[in-house]
Amino acid sequence: MSPNAPQASIDRVVGEIKRMGCQPHLSQGKFRTVIGAVGEEGIVDQNHLASLDGVEKVVPIMKPYKLASREFHEEDTIVEVGGGSVPVVRIGAQHAACISGPCAVENEIMLRTISRHVRDGGATILRGGVYKPRTSPYSFQGLGESALKLMRNVGDELSMPICVEVMDTRQVEQMEKYVDCFQIGARNMQNFDLLREVGKTRKAVLLKRGLAATVKDWLLSAEYVLSQGNRSVILCERGIKTFEDSVRYTLDITSIPVLRQLTHLPVIVDPSHAAGKRDYVPSIAAAGMAAGAHGIIVEVHHCPSEAQCDGPQALLPETFRELMIQLRQIAAIFGKQFAEITEPAAV
Amino acid sequence: MSPNAPQASIDRVVGEIKRMGCQPHLSQGKFRTVIGAVGEEGIVDQNHLASLDGVEKVVPIMKPYKLASREFHEEDTIVEVGGGSVPVVRIGAQHAACISGPCAVENEIMLRTISRHVRDGGATILRGGVYKPRTSPYSFQGLGESALKLMRNVGDELSMPICVEVMDTRQVEQMEKYVDCFQIGARNMQNFDLLREVGKTRKAVLLKRGLAATVKDWLLSAEYVLSQGNRSVILCERGIKTFEDSVRYTLDITSIPVLRQLTHLPVIVDPSHAAGKRDYVPSIAAAGMAAGAHGIIVEVHHCPSEAQCDGPQALLPETFRELMIQLRQIAAIFGKQFAEITEPAAV
Amino acid sequence: MSPNAPQASIDRVVGEIKRMGCQPHLSQGKFRTVIGAVGEEGIVDQNHLASLDGVEKVVPIMKPYKLASREFHEEDTIVEVGGGSVPVVRIGAQHAACISGPCAVENEIMLRTISRHVRDGGATILRGGVYKPRTSPYSFQGLGESALKLMRNVGDELSMPICVEVMDTRQVEQMEKYVDCFQIGARNMQNFDLLREVGKTRKAVLLKRGLAATVKDWLLSAEYVLSQGNRSVILCERGIKTFEDSVRYTLDITSIPVLRQLTHLPVIVDPSHAAGKRDYVPSIAAAGMAAGAHGIIVEVHHCPSEAQCDGPQALLPETFRELMIQLRQIAAIFGKQFAEITEPAAV
Amino acid sequence: MSPNAPQASIDRVVGEIKRMGCQPHLSQGKFRTVIGAVGEEGIVDQNHLASLDGVEKVVPIMKPYKLASREFHEEDTIVEVGGGSVPVVRIGAQHAACISGPCAVENEIMLRTISRHVRDGGATILRGGVYKPRTSPYSFQGLGESALKLMRNVGDELSMPICVEVMDTRQVEQMEKYVDCFQIGARNMQNFDLLREVGKTRKAVLLKRGLAATVKDWLLSAEYVLSQGNRSVILCERGIKTFEDSVRYTLDITSIPVLRQLTHLPVIVDPSHAAGKRDYVPSIAAAGMAAGAHGIIVEVHHCPSEAQCDGPQALLPETFRELMIQLRQIAAIFGKQFAEITEPAAV
Repeated sequence: MSPNAPQASIDRVVGEIKRMGCQPHLSQGKFRTVIGAVGEEGIVDQNHLASLDGVEKVVPIMKPYKLASREFHEEDTIVEVGGGSVPVVRIGAQHAACISGPCAVENEIMLRTISRHVRDGGATILRGGVYKPRTSPYSFQGLGESALKLMRNVGDELSMPICVEVMDTRQVEQMEKYVDCFQIGARNMQNFDLLREVGKTRKAVLLKRGLAATVKDWLLSAEYVLSQGNRSVILCERGIKTFEDSVRYTLDITSIPVLRQLTHLPVIVDPSHAAGKRDYVPSIAAAGMAAGAHGIIVEVHHCPSEAQCDGPQALLPETFRELMIQLRQIAAIFGKQFAEITEPAAV
Repeated sequence: MSPNAPQASIDRVVGEIKRMGCQPHLSQGKFRTVIGAVGEEGIVDQNHLASLDGVEKVVPIMKPYKLASREFHEEDTIVEVGGGSVPVVRIGAQHAACISGPCAVENEIMLRTISRHVRDGGATILRGGVYKPRTSPYSFQGLGESALKLMRNVGDELSMPICVEVMDTRQVEQMEKYVDCFQIGARNMQNFDLLREVGKTRKAVLLKRGLAATVKDWLLSAEYVLSQGNRSVILCERGIKTFEDSVRYTLDITSIPVLRQLTHLPVIVDPSHAAGKRDYVPSIAAAGMAAGAHGIIVEVHHCPSEAQCDGPQALLPETFRELMIQLRQIAAIFGKQFAEITEPAAV
Repeated sequence: MSPNAPQASIDRVVGEIKRMGCQPHLSQGKFRTVIGAVGEEGIVDQNHLASLDGVEKVVPIMKPYKLASREFHEEDTIVEVGGGSVPVVRIGAQHAACISGPCAVENEIMLRTISRHVRDGGATILRGGVYKPRTSPYSFQGLGESALKLMRNVGDELSMPICVEVMDTRQVEQMEKYVDCFQIGARNMQNFDLLREVGKTRKAVLLKRGLAATVKDWLLSAEYVLSQGNRSVILCERGIKTFEDSVRYTLDITSIPVLRQLTHLPVIVDPSHAAGKRDYVPSIAAAGMAAGAHGIIVEVHHCPSEAQCDGPQALLPETFRELMIQLRQIAAIFGKQFAEITEPAAV
Repeated sequence: MSPNAPQASIDRVVGEIKRMGCQPHLSQGKFRTVIGAVGEEGIVDQNHLASLDGVEKVVPIMKPYKLASREFHEEDTIVEVGGGSVPVVRIGAQHAACISGPCAVENEIMLRTISRHVRDGGATILRGGVYKPRTSPYSFQGLGESALKLMRNVGDELSMPICVEVMDTRQVEQMEKYVDCFQIGARNMQNFDLLREVGKTRKAVLLKRGLAATVKDWLLSAEYVLSQGNRSVILCERGIKTFEDSVRYTLDITSIPVLRQLTHLPVIVDPSHAAGKRDYVPSIAAAGMAAGAHGIIVEVHHCPSEAQCDGPQALLPETFRELMIQLRQIAAIFGKQFAEITEPAAV
């Protein structure tokens, strides 16, 4: 629309788009409003739309993803995580954030100890697995709802929004009451029903890249969430499968600048799952920030040898603290800033 | 157990395994009964078990998958698909089978036409997509329940068991009433809740390999189904992601002999999705049979240019018929035989 | 050219192509002559060529490889290996062949024993490593020239052409005196100077696919050889690197039908290096033949535990013999035939 | 050896190692001398060596690479490039360096223009292709010896050591007269004869990682050079082949911390070839430095649209200058420093 298009013109265009059988999606930037018409090719009458009052230009977007595309939404999206009982943490544009916590919630003491450590080190969002996607049916599968309540309590006490992985469409309704951010794991990146289901909520969604997903596949999965009306998607690069066997996965660092060009959505990196080994985590995290990421999600454990899952990749609290100091320095070079929690923790 | 162990001894061993906190799994072969004790390492008292009457040997299986392992079940498993309103089709050991039909059910006429063609060509199980896992939210997503009923009707008329993909845990209960075989797609190979849910049914499960899953990951996913008590798992190799870009996926032919060594479960190949292009389908299908597969699942369309999805990979009916002649010849070299439908179709 | 174009017209066209600064390449088929003009885009005056006597059609070939392309040479090329002191073995079109022998020549007795075994089993070309490309500088590097002479002697005695790997441009001149077929290993597929050097000889060239080479890269490497005037190139699929770790390499079976469509050159498979494990070799070899290959190259050893390299992948002589029986049956289904050695061996 | 072991004891140990049939390799660090005995397993009499005067400890190194291993040489190696007519540039430990120039030397004016730009921007070593490894035989193959002389002249004028790719064993002797650093390209990483040949010179060797080489393969290739007595090897990560198709190669950022742990050799990154697209080069370069690399090799062109090869990946001079400012800041965070050229250029 033209910069000064009145609301009436905008409403008129929205109405016409619906009449043509498309979904209208509004994107209001600082300077102008962009209206997306999403639907099958060939059903949009471009000439008609171009002739309406207040319409400056009609641009066909040929990318298979539309709402996720920077062509549709030029400015960086800033996703807000939290609100209500906890402060809002922003991720996107100049706002970087660190999401941290244990791999899985194992018991209350362990969760409190680690949460306190990661908050002290500079994390502003708390993560912790409640339902665990395990390759083997005989591995620890998570504590379920009791762990969910524990996460909520500890998050509230420490003023940290919480991010928890969801695995099954049947869990969405229950989890929505507790979490500030749904995590979709790599193995579920193309669980399309699950994507649609979290897309119907209004909680932030952290969408991990599938282990063999191209950047295009990944953005199409984001599109599933966005197309349900949920605009708060954070992309998370966590490594892809390659022939290299000295680490578990190869973090695809090149995907960061590629995504920064193709999409307006924020992108973070997960150095823990890529490396699979504590020693390599800080270097990968630093590389991610230098490549343009908006933050990291990293696992910390004060006693990794006792962890029920993924102990070898968990950082020790002191290493985590030192890493955050370096990441803040790197972020500053690229004009980004990590959020800080200013109010004292309640516990 | 010893070859002549009485039932009472078997019951005793089962009881002891439960007492130790493990799950007992019985496998009765022609010559002897093997009892699996599945559980965490360290909780089984091997010496105690070895001292019980009728126990010949206690063998710790170190493979991460147990029920899927050939060490646990030496003879080839023969999975039975169908029964009730349609004949039983066997897959495994010397029994090969061809599963065929359209990619997606688009309408009744199209389904009847293609089903008739594939039955005439030699397919004994009918496939057809009802819920379609599509990379883009804007692509055709399948017709849902109405197509499911249509599949059931056509299968009954042609005396063919039907195989349909399930995508969401919430669909399992409804679909169980209609289908003879659940298909788990590549993108859901590690949707662990879905695996458990179909594992609770007693329908056959066709488990496609994930696009970046190792053979070990795949067998662990089969183990999720098996561990719920469902022993009717058919593995399906459908191509993996590699750097090669002249086809969609690289069919991993080497996985066939590897699986034949590691597991007792039957394995088939899907040449359609691997190639993504009709011209290459017959060669890949033939290669699969020569490598030791128990059959194929292949897409056929009488008018591929009008297909709503994956038209370019669908075989024409006449090519399909010729292919089946070659596959029967190759199967014969390796002592396998494709099932035939002998009774005339009802339609 | 038109089917009845006289030699004078052909000469005229060749002359004009040279005048334009291109290289002319003649391809004389049964029914017509095709003249390739290979050079930079834009320097060929198509209209002028089309106006010459006897020219039927001028077709621009846009594929990056030209001489290797089926567009340039429609009929299958039949490569002849041998001649002189040994019979000629044909590979291509309906002619299949088996190349076999030890991984490396270790000593005279071992070479004679294995050669006799593979000849008895049905191999018609003898292979044996003389200079070995080893990942580690501390592994056995081959016996060099003495082994080369031994190969020649044994090949002559058994009436088998010999195929030996060349690694360095400086070896080409010496080896040309001894071998019937140069092998270019996977790691040298893009050693462009070496390709050019064997392209200048008139010996057959067995070009293995690089471990991460696309089909297009591979055909471009063949083009390096062809562009020097050597038309006797045999492609050999030997597995590519993927994330799968249950075998050494993933044999790309799909590449066989892709190559059969794109190129006129014969293609064989190497099941030994792909599998890296004896047990899987027969299935992979059978799959290769069923997919449309013109034969196999396979390693045999009568006492693999004593082999200085790659013992675990060498077939035992009796397994090799049984495999060849199956391969002949598969070849027959697809209208191909393995060459036989009819004259009695001299030894 | 003990910290205070006299030269006589060292000589004695070296003598004994030779007597056992091994190669002795001395590594003299600040605090102690380590003597490597490289040879087949089982021929070293450890007890005898341990009993000699001045020997502190005998440690068997089981890694397949020995001279490249950090176990053999604990401190970071600092490779010196240049000397003689140009200053020495150090790479390794705290010394970072930027190698830059055009992809290929096309003519004198172009080379002078770009060289001046990269020197002004902060590069201290000049690169430029003279023999080009091209996938297609019909692409520009480089200017050969005349370009080599040009590189030498411009390097001398600007006080910059030069780095040039070598492709064929037959080029080594000639090139050794001109270059300060041999580059081994990705496609020649396992051209073992070439590795041995540059290993016999005493020029620095920049060894690029093969497109599908594991870190272990790569270090074994370095071992080929080192085992010939040349200790000046610089590793260069330039991207590996994966299924991702939005860029040419996936830079394996994880390999940087892995290498820093496994080897003492310096490692740099090549963001140009990984990305294949100018826009992504700065982010990848920055990520490489943040991950722990000792510098970058990057292509620059003042007029990329006219470049005869790889124009799309060449940085513009002003982008290069800005990038170097950022890289210096990142290096400083990790205690590294880029070399500067202090003396005024002669031209």
